[in-house]
Amino acid sequence: MSSQRAVDSLSLSELKQAFEAAASAYEELKGKGLSFDLTRGKPAAEQLDLSNDLLNLPAGDFRSANGTDVRNYGGLTGLLELREIFAELLNVEVDNLIALGNSSLEVMHDLVVYSLLYGTPDSARPWSKEAEIKVLTPVPGYDRHFAICESFGITMIPVPLLEDGPDLDVVRKLVAEDPAIKGIWCVPTYSNPTGTIYSEEVTRELVSMTTAASDFRIIWDNAYAVHTLVEEAPKAHDIVAFAREAGNPNRPLAVASTSKITFAGAGVAFLAASDVNQQWFQKHMSKRSIGPDKVNQLRHVKFFGDAEGVRRHMAKHRDILKPKFDALLEILENRLGGLDVANWTKPEGGYFVSLDVVPGTAQRVVQLAKEAGISLTAAGSAFPLGNDPDNTNIRLAPSFPTLAEVKDAMDGVATCVLYAAYEHALAGK
Amino acid sequence: MSSQRAVDSLSLSELKQAFEAAASAYEELKGKGLSFDLTRGKPAAEQLDLSNDLLNLPAGDFRSANGTDVRNYGGLTGLLELREIFAELLNVEVDNLIALGNSSLEVMHDLVVYSLLYGTPDSARPWSKEAEIKVLTPVPGYDRHFAICESFGITMIPVPLLEDGPDLDVVRKLVAEDPAIKGIWCVPTYSNPTGTIYSEEVTRELVSMTTAASDFRIIWDNAYAVHTLVEEAPKAHDIVAFAREAGNPNRPLAVASTSKITFAGAGVAFLAASDVNQQWFQKHMSKRSIGPDKVNQLRHVKFFGDAEGVRRHMAKHRDILKPKFDALLEILENRLGGLDVANWTKPEGGYFVSLDVVPGTAQRVVQLAKEAGISLTAAGSAFPLGNDPDNTNIRLAPSFPTLAEVKDAMDGVATCVLYAAYEHALAGK
Repeated sequence: MSSQRAVDSLSLSELKQAFEAAASAYEELKGKGLSFDLTRGKPAAEQLDLSNDLLNLPAGDFRSANGTDVRNYGGLTGLLELREIFAELLNVEVDNLIALGNSSLEVMHDLVVYSLLYGTPDSARPWSKEAEIKVLTPVPGYDRHFAICESFGITMIPVPLLEDGPDLDVVRKLVAEDPAIKGIWCVPTYSNPTGTIYSEEVTRELVSMTTAASDFRIIWDNAYAVHTLVEEAPKAHDIVAFAREAGNPNRPLAVASTSKITFAGAGVAFLAASDVNQQWFQKHMSKRSIGPDKVNQLRHVKFFGDAEGVRRHMAKHRDILKPKFDALLEILENRLGGLDVANWTKPEGGYFVSLDVVPGTAQRVVQLAKEAGISLTAAGSAFPLGNDPDNTNIRLAPSFPTLAEVKDAMDGVATCVLYAAYEHALAGK
Repeated sequence: MSSQRAVDSLSLSELKQAFEAAASAYEELKGKGLSFDLTRGKPAAEQLDLSNDLLNLPAGDFRSANGTDVRNYGGLTGLLELREIFAELLNVEVDNLIALGNSSLEVMHDLVVYSLLYGTPDSARPWSKEAEIKVLTPVPGYDRHFAICESFGITMIPVPLLEDGPDLDVVRKLVAEDPAIKGIWCVPTYSNPTGTIYSEEVTRELVSMTTAASDFRIIWDNAYAVHTLVEEAPKAHDIVAFAREAGNPNRPLAVASTSKITFAGAGVAFLAASDVNQQWFQKHMSKRSIGPDKVNQLRHVKFFGDAEGVRRHMAKHRDILKPKFDALLEILENRLGGLDVANWTKPEGGYFVSLDVVPGTAQRVVQLAKEAGISLTAAGSAFPLGNDPDNTNIRLAPSFPTLAEVKDAMDGVATCVLYAAYEHALAGK
């Protein structure tokens, strides 16, 4: 590149020169006719292959450990032996954990629906009877959480996500004052998209803090609990026990799934919660379902064997994912390091890198990338209603493309970031 | 028995004698220490065995016909090749049919939830914003339909179920007058529990009749469309097309599933509806799910092959079920025929026989049976809120027990019916 100096330190002529170089690089990029997709946290085919034994399981067997015929109706709580495996991994008591259908998004959606239509066990009335319902959304965050709230007309209040979880000074003040604030969305391990790991201190404070709403809920989406890029995932916080110890047993509703462990569309989901919350959930769920797919649960039990089997399996995912994350980060560092045009997270797990480009240019970068054949998640998608007030954040998802594609795509993204940065700086002169 | 004469024709002393004989038979029954369960429409293990090939499928394959990797996220409408098989069986256009998760109860529940929280495409506002919502429930009917309504505070208005469907004179008048009546629950083929088959005339009238509510909906639960006990199931009415022809395209919401075709807890469900309804459902479903379990859908495609494969498979179910229904009906006829103590349906398909005992004695019969070790569905369960005004109806479900158990259990049930009938007649003297 024309410069390894920070963009702000350039004279106007140097800036013009840098822009010309970036524009020329971008034209070259467009000429390549690329077609890459970095939009969603989808596992690559190579990762899905790791679970292909599931395509022949349960290999004629149809009995759970206690003799239940999994082919027939019944059993709202799922197979005990599967709950035991994930109770260990999620670090919750097995009595507080149930195994459900093929997506934790469904569970979270239904938790909100039941709260709206029935109210929680601690609600004076169904949430839908309140004049307004609000929830806190640490940002950047997960767009599908926001979509649920948006669809039901729930007001979202963004709160900053710090190194160890949401900014508690902000959170504490808001929840203490406003009884309309009924909850907070959290992704406690390798947050989407920042890779943040919630500390035990933050976790304990979230279940302990005083809330004006008696029915305040933490939706604890532990989607990436075991999805480490390093040797070992952090031990999950037993938020259900923490909450019980803090005297707010019903506050957390924790979910997880095997979507990114086995098959993204054919896994098993989990709900961990207090006894009271479990009774509440299962009572309402029983109107909807005679029980989850127990054959698929047995399939997963046979595939994993035990919790250590899941950890071994996740190490294979890591071996596929880590080179892609390394390449992504290396390209960002090589192409953008020291130029003061971007910051990015360096996650130790999960599926994403959160990239902050020059404020005011995120949409432009995504547009430029799109025109060059590189699909990125829409700018702002990690914010409620897609509204990133600084127009700075872009979520990068390197899992689905091949390693070679990640390299080519990210090199292209870096070109777009530079182009937009110099263009923006020039416009400001 | 002491008499083959109708109970009303007996003198007091004859009645006393009949009662003594029945009481003695009942004491003998209790002494047998039976333990039978005729409560639910569960497939027997022998029926589930018919689908055991599913326990090894999709045998390593993971591509749908159009090349989609079924292991990964995506695809709200389900696999086209599975939709094609069931479009033929359900006699709807494939474009109007989508394949979903493992239970049509879930689909029906969510249809109601979306109507409550969002309103239908034809609603002025979400149903939950109305002062009162009412639905028509043909009786006797399916208790899980009623449980959904009860849980959401929806008022149920029972209407009589005749030989060819709901009593349209009653239905027409109600729906024409009351805009709060938003729908009707129908089981058009081999109704639960009566075995009723809706005629084309009734079906066409249901989609044509004038309704005060612009957003009136028919939940068309075609759970038993292919579950015939005779040579061939009746051809399904294409209610989606009928409704379009009648100018009320969005009125029907039709569902079905493979729960009683393959595995009761691990099947595939379907929704047939107009384009507008499909867009509406999928829009709201997309907040809840990234897509149904496509691996299980592929598993079913490979297992069935085509619609004829489903029909062949259902013939095997019939061969297992028919002897149980025949035995049940034969015992009722032999033990209760001509005594004027009971009437019952003689279904050509489905999972149930609807038994009407002497009015005022259904609860007593169920209690007597229970004390003799025979579990029957709770009296009144085929009525909204469990309230059978005549205390006469009992749903019999002969599928789960073995043939020998059905015979012993039904002989016991007949004893209980007689005992309660004579006891009741004596009390009235």
